[in-house]
Amino acid sequence: MGRTSSIVSFSLTLLILFHGYTAQQWPNECQLDQLNALEPSQVIQSEGGRIEVWDHHAPQLRCSGFAFERFVIEPQGLYLPTFMNAGKLTFVVHGTGLMGRVIPGCAETFIESPVFGESQGQGQSQGFRDMHQKVEHLRCGDKRTIPVDRIQDKRKRTSQLTRGSSLPLYNNGNEPLILVAAADLANNQNQLDRNLRPVLIAGNNPQGQEWLQGRQQQKQNNIFTGFAPEILAQAFKINVETAQQLQSHQDNRGNIVKVKGPFGVIRPPLRRGQGGQQPQEKANGLEETLCTMRCTENLDDPSDADVYKPSLGYISTLNSYNLPILRLLRLSALRGSIRNNAMVLPQWNVNANSALYVTNGKAHIQMVNDNGDRVFDQEISNGQLLVVPQGFSVMKRATSEQFQWIEFKTNENAQVNSLAGRTSVMTGLPLEVITNGFQISPQDAKRVKFSTMETTLTHSSGPMSYGRPRV
Amino acid sequence: MGRTSSIVSFSLTLLILFHGYTAQQWPNECQLDQLNALEPSQVIQSEGGRIEVWDHHAPQLRCSGFAFERFVIEPQGLYLPTFMNAGKLTFVVHGTGLMGRVIPGCAETFIESPVFGESQGQGQSQGFRDMHQKVEHLRCGDKRTIPVDRIQDKRKRTSQLTRGSSLPLYNNGNEPLILVAAADLANNQNQLDRNLRPVLIAGNNPQGQEWLQGRQQQKQNNIFTGFAPEILAQAFKINVETAQQLQSHQDNRGNIVKVKGPFGVIRPPLRRGQGGQQPQEKANGLEETLCTMRCTENLDDPSDADVYKPSLGYISTLNSYNLPILRLLRLSALRGSIRNNAMVLPQWNVNANSALYVTNGKAHIQMVNDNGDRVFDQEISNGQLLVVPQGFSVMKRATSEQFQWIEFKTNENAQVNSLAGRTSVMTGLPLEVITNGFQISPQDAKRVKFSTMETTLTHSSGPMSYGRPRV
Amino acid sequence: MGRTSSIVSFSLTLLILFHGYTAQQWPNECQLDQLNALEPSQVIQSEGGRIEVWDHHAPQLRCSGFAFERFVIEPQGLYLPTFMNAGKLTFVVHGTGLMGRVIPGCAETFIESPVFGESQGQGQSQGFRDMHQKVEHLRCGDKRTIPVDRIQDKRKRTSQLTRGSSLPLYNNGNEPLILVAAADLANNQNQLDRNLRPVLIAGNNPQGQEWLQGRQQQKQNNIFTGFAPEILAQAFKINVETAQQLQSHQDNRGNIVKVKGPFGVIRPPLRRGQGGQQPQEKANGLEETLCTMRCTENLDDPSDADVYKPSLGYISTLNSYNLPILRLLRLSALRGSIRNNAMVLPQWNVNANSALYVTNGKAHIQMVNDNGDRVFDQEISNGQLLVVPQGFSVMKRATSEQFQWIEFKTNENAQVNSLAGRTSVMTGLPLEVITNGFQISPQDAKRVKFSTMETTLTHSSGPMSYGRPRV
Repeated sequence: MGRTSSIVSFSLTLLILFHGYTAQQWPNECQLDQLNALEPSQVIQSEGGRIEVWDHHAPQLRCSGFAFERFVIEPQGLYLPTFMNAGKLTFVVHGTGLMGRVIPGCAETFIESPVFGESQGQGQSQGFRDMHQKVEHLRCGDKRTIPVDRIQDKRKRTSQLTRGSSLPLYNNGNEPLILVAAADLANNQNQLDRNLRPVLIAGNNPQGQEWLQGRQQQKQNNIFTGFAPEILAQAFKINVETAQQLQSHQDNRGNIVKVKGPFGVIRPPLRRGQGGQQPQEKANGLEETLCTMRCTENLDDPSDADVYKPSLGYISTLNSYNLPILRLLRLSALRGSIRNNAMVLPQWNVNANSALYVTNGKAHIQMVNDNGDRVFDQEISNGQLLVVPQGFSVMKRATSEQFQWIEFKTNENAQVNSLAGRTSVMTGLPLEVITNGFQISPQDAKRVKFSTMETTLTHSSGPMSYGRPRV
Repeated sequence: MGRTSSIVSFSLTLLILFHGYTAQQWPNECQLDQLNALEPSQVIQSEGGRIEVWDHHAPQLRCSGFAFERFVIEPQGLYLPTFMNAGKLTFVVHGTGLMGRVIPGCAETFIESPVFGESQGQGQSQGFRDMHQKVEHLRCGDKRTIPVDRIQDKRKRTSQLTRGSSLPLYNNGNEPLILVAAADLANNQNQLDRNLRPVLIAGNNPQGQEWLQGRQQQKQNNIFTGFAPEILAQAFKINVETAQQLQSHQDNRGNIVKVKGPFGVIRPPLRRGQGGQQPQEKANGLEETLCTMRCTENLDDPSDADVYKPSLGYISTLNSYNLPILRLLRLSALRGSIRNNAMVLPQWNVNANSALYVTNGKAHIQMVNDNGDRVFDQEISNGQLLVVPQGFSVMKRATSEQFQWIEFKTNENAQVNSLAGRTSVMTGLPLEVITNGFQISPQDAKRVKFSTMETTLTHSSGPMSYGRPRV
Repeated sequence: MGRTSSIVSFSLTLLILFHGYTAQQWPNECQLDQLNALEPSQVIQSEGGRIEVWDHHAPQLRCSGFAFERFVIEPQGLYLPTFMNAGKLTFVVHGTGLMGRVIPGCAETFIESPVFGESQGQGQSQGFRDMHQKVEHLRCGDKRTIPVDRIQDKRKRTSQLTRGSSLPLYNNGNEPLILVAAADLANNQNQLDRNLRPVLIAGNNPQGQEWLQGRQQQKQNNIFTGFAPEILAQAFKINVETAQQLQSHQDNRGNIVKVKGPFGVIRPPLRRGQGGQQPQEKANGLEETLCTMRCTENLDDPSDADVYKPSLGYISTLNSYNLPILRLLRLSALRGSIRNNAMVLPQWNVNANSALYVTNGKAHIQMVNDNGDRVFDQEISNGQLLVVPQGFSVMKRATSEQFQWIEFKTNENAQVNSLAGRTSVMTGLPLEVITNGFQISPQDAKRVKFSTMETTLTHSSGPMSYGRPRV
């Protein structure tokens, strides 16, 4: 009996040895035979909102290298500055807010004129109340209307990005400010292991970093906490009590805090119906220096759309050609908005993985992997995330009044190949290749090549069943 | 006894834990103490030819990141378009053919004039029979003669490359069209795991992808198969029957099919004794745009050779300076052809791994690893593959009438260091370093430095024994 | 009992399976809860000096990708040329020497005029005694004085770098020549696995490469050893006896040999008080070609310092802007020298890991990881190495008369964020973010923002305790 058990355990270990060999020496994480719409796996509650974190160990996120987060900042909520070990691209899903941009080494260019009042005559105030780096407006209007006309457009749904810069965000509106952010842990902006490692400059995370092995039960503190108070006192030339206050030992408000009273940062007024200082920035020739580099772009202005059909919807892309800082981050984005009679023709990513997040409505999505197997065939709705690995073909079809999504891509100039439509692979192929390859008549082959003259969006005629097992 | 078994299994698991630690956390795949000439591990048979796939799990391929394939396309065989998750460089070893280039988004620039005949008046034909993207000629002449004179050269052995573009190939000659292709799974063109993942646009692979874990028994289908026929019908605006035909369910011809009847693609005539439209392309200034970017280069024209000695042979290199698209692919190539009295002086790759494939003849190759051990000392012949990792020194000596090879390198500007010869390390070193380092006289050191005035190729005087155990 | 043992072993293997899953599929090597000052783990003794190698398997080096070595070359010692599988940056810590630069393919530009004497009329000498590639002077003066004035500065502590080029080094002074070198195994200059793989061109290593699995007991030979002597004889056109001499079979002097008699390489005279041919190189416009590319830079000239305060010290950086070849190597460096009353304000690496090596004196260093935990709080002294991973905050404070260090960084343009000081994150943040984030008064927040007006260096007032357990 003992002998038997020994044999059993021996075979078990051998199995592990064998499995271990192939699995570890030759990682196989993109052998995806089934994909799921992903929901956040951890919610970090704070006083002024919450951060929802997707589990980057899930096979599809592991394969694609993405770390994904959603920020929900309540009115008067202030998201405290945090530094990341990877370049991050953020999209404003809902609400309005203020964003501070801090790139250390750049000058404080927003300077408040002297206010004759309480702060006068005090220690450090020398003729001004405060000066700091740039603060930008973030706005997002009514998401329910498809904007057709530029004049009517009052929305500003912004894609904003960070790398090393520490970005406080403040919700100055009456509705929650919702943002989603994607980071690529696999590119060389991340010089650590393939884990998301946020560094808190202020605040803390009492729940701990559940997504990191061995950090689950541990409170995550801000960087001041790790330094000795005397060191901080000397570095900042402050007294030890203030230094201890920076360590936020008694603070359990988390990383998004509630602001009491007014939030008086210096900022230029927001132009009505236009959205921020963008046109102004475009006007001067300085935007290529790092300190003034443009970091925000409104993706919801259909007049800037790359694909636009009034009856179907629009698609806008953001890459290193229209936002040069993306060359550093090695990320790009695509914003899509389609009506319920529209279909995005089947296509695949040539040189990137992408993470598709639904910001509004529902769609039926069908995805096919490298083996020709259908790996996703479901309805995806508001708030869900779906990864589209390189080379996987995907078809999107709106199933609600409107379907809107944002897609983050792991390449500063992500390319897409269409399977059908005027600029597709099939249209580019000689007729003879199609007749011989698919054993169809020249007439059918011509239809395959030339019937669909649209490039990306087409009409989808009525309901279809889905989610069925493949034939 | 039970206690014993428990201890046994405990030590076994500990062993695994330990082995696992070093092997997985710190991969050691380039600890190569012995190299082999590699043959394909899987042959995918198709109606019109076969694809031979090397096992990329073999230690040397795993270390270097290469995936390697050979395509044998019979006369009238058509290789159906396939998309890859990695940049690929292809070399025509034998035969002639036509290659279609499809870069989605680029215009169909090859347009057929109307033919008054069968296709007139039919559904989609509007004054033309077909239009498609560029089709190029591929030719390869007699491989047995070393070309000495440009006028006599009728061969075109082409190095052609792809990234995301889907390339159908057609053999319009009377002999098999043979191509070899290398992809670098380790560079960032591949955004998935380190496996070769071809995506079939037409055809299928009834044998399955044996080189992928869990895909061995499974038929690999084209991407249409995974979509619902109704989706395809809507996307292409065709009927459901044609859509089902695209899925090739009943088709077992594989990925290379036999064309019945003539293969009528539109293409410019091939110029005699010259080979294709290359000089014409060079003439215009448009080749830097992506759609017109030059993707083929004839490596077998000795008048373009980088190293050329009439009595010994020639060596041509292809890098991002002479073919700018290689900057995207991060690959380069070297073509060598030497006579049986010639030796390629010992050299090593500075910033790349290389995969050496023999296209003709035999050679004695000696290779030395980073530890100074001889890891290869054999004759290598036609059809065999040998990997030369970064820093490994290699000497090649023809042992047949002629020895020809193609070397793919994992860097767009691969550099080579020679051990001997006029541009070598030894010649660049001060005399005193050589006399002191090797304890030889100044006279001997001078001979070491200056005796061999050739740079790459030298005469090899007569037979030598090899394959012996090292002294 | 047997049943019990079976269950025990089963649970053990399950444990391994689980542990293996997370540990290997998702490497966690940057989960650093404690850092140590590292000493070399292996010393390779040679006739003319020694090479000390740090264990790159240590968690912090594994996380950061660094391989680190120290070379101690005795007077008249000659470090024989070696090729590396990774770009390497070297810093001269102590002593003076000569460095040969050999980039194969570049011309031998240092040519000796004919000497009418012993070598005349001999076989290969045709009117000159020797010609070779560039030889440069390396100097390092008294390390104990902080240089304040340029005129007084006679030191040359050089940061020199290599990629594929084989660099012999000769100590022509009376004191040991000490160099430290860092290579980044994680960037794409290394195309092999993440191990340091030096290839010896001359000499050997009788102790073997202890840092490589399976190479510990084995003598490491030079690359000539692996080739058959007849091959070498043919390649170099020398006789077989000389070829065997190149293999150094009987040689046990190691990789640093002692030169008997004078070491007569051709070189321009060293200018007094200036250090080498650098200004001359800067004068011509050719330095961007690879053969003449500047590869050395003196980091110890305070007149070139980036941060300089006479009473506190200076900091100089070396990146791809001032040394363009670093763009290829993807490395940069920082040289710091501070007095015992100075502190480097807390800061973190934005886009790089760094390896900090102490060249002189002692300092108290406090480091905080991404979780806000203090992971290092000790005195570090001369000869010790400390890794600072991306995003980890670090404070340095001199605890001896003088503290000098060199920091290697894994990015050609490494960026640093300061926590305190005029260009810091805190200064760039709006006042309201600080008052709300840390729950302090506007007065205190202003002090935090504006009290420290220095950028990098500040005064540190007297002794502090350290090494205590965190509160």
